[in-house]
Amino acid sequence: MNGLPTRLGQQLQFLVEIDHLKSVVRATRNLHNGALENTAEHSWYVALMGLMLAEHANEPVDGARVAQMLLIHDLVEIDAGDHPLHGGHPPADQADKEIAAAVRIFGLLPDEQGQTLHALWHEFEAAESADARFAKAIDRFQPLMANMANGGGSWPQYDVHRAQLEHRVGGIGQGSDALWAVAQRIFDAGQAQGWIKA
Amino acid sequence: MNGLPTRLGQQLQFLVEIDHLKSVVRATRNLHNGALENTAEHSWYVALMGLMLAEHANEPVDGARVAQMLLIHDLVEIDAGDHPLHGGHPPADQADKEIAAAVRIFGLLPDEQGQTLHALWHEFEAAESADARFAKAIDRFQPLMANMANGGGSWPQYDVHRAQLEHRVGGIGQGSDALWAVAQRIFDAGQAQGWIKA
Repeated sequence: MNGLPTRLGQQLQFLVEIDHLKSVVRATRNLHNGALENTAEHSWYVALMGLMLAEHANEPVDGARVAQMLLIHDLVEIDAGDHPLHGGHPPADQADKEIAAAVRIFGLLPDEQGQTLHALWHEFEAAESADARFAKAIDRFQPLMANMANGGGSWPQYDVHRAQLEHRVGGIGQGSDALWAVAQRIFDAGQAQGWIKA
Repeated sequence: MNGLPTRLGQQLQFLVEIDHLKSVVRATRNLHNGALENTAEHSWYVALMGLMLAEHANEPVDGARVAQMLLIHDLVEIDAGDHPLHGGHPPADQADKEIAAAVRIFGLLPDEQGQTLHALWHEFEAAESADARFAKAIDRFQPLMANMANGGGSWPQYDVHRAQLEHRVGGIGQGSDALWAVAQRIFDAGQAQGWIKA
């Protein structure tokens, strides 16, 4: 739409662009309807998880800031796609793709607003703050809930062993001992069901 | 999962429940893939809109708080369903259904956390603060973007006239003159396309 005030025009262009996140499909299924989750739904869900569970972080966190981080943490998937945790190593150029995606997508915004969001994304990626470590814990914990509600989800498919799983989602414990304790109970239950190998 | 600490157990029960929002389908279509939007995707999108556009509110607002409000504003649809703006009057008991849904869903949480969210939802519904008026403006503005990207969306289907439309989404102007000015340009364009009647 031409002739809008510059800042608002840039912001609306960014918003039009990020609607693409609804087309990025993840390896996890929704808890109740069994459909594959898309990254927009996922982002809503983990943002709300971050808000509701902030009291369980290992270090004091700002729940509202954690939620903001989780709202934008996967925008880079619009260009770089989603790479399932158990789907084997991501392509070697995955990190490069995500870095380029962040430059392009956050670059649609007015300069200082784009820089703020870009920095927030980088903080998340690098897990370089208490907020980011807790946001990462949430992002790793949510698929465990989804898999338990869907016959183990991708665990049996990828022949996942418990030690592998504990390693891959170990970030949960970095952010929240309380959620890590729940994760251990989920692993026990998944192993008892035969969805996770010893 | 039995035997969890009470607060965390209640919070996880709430989180399991709200995954149902991914099954509530709206009358609007996504901007790029043309699929009907579900309410979880919608909630993600408007939360991020609220954050990015906060500077355009008529009154000073807290963007992070607006985003929180928008993350939870439609949770009642899990029980009460979505009622499209142009689909005719909602059933007489719709408000009652939503009030009961709020009691049930927020009631899953630990008391004071549930009360805080319930109050935030009520503040949104009643548009009784600057944050709520701006959040409502965002919630009304987003479907205009969706309809413009989808051949007018539900406007032609419901034979919508401009005066009706301006009345139904007038809340945009209560929250943001800047977005109302964009809405007017969208109405002009929709009318020029024949999607909105004079």
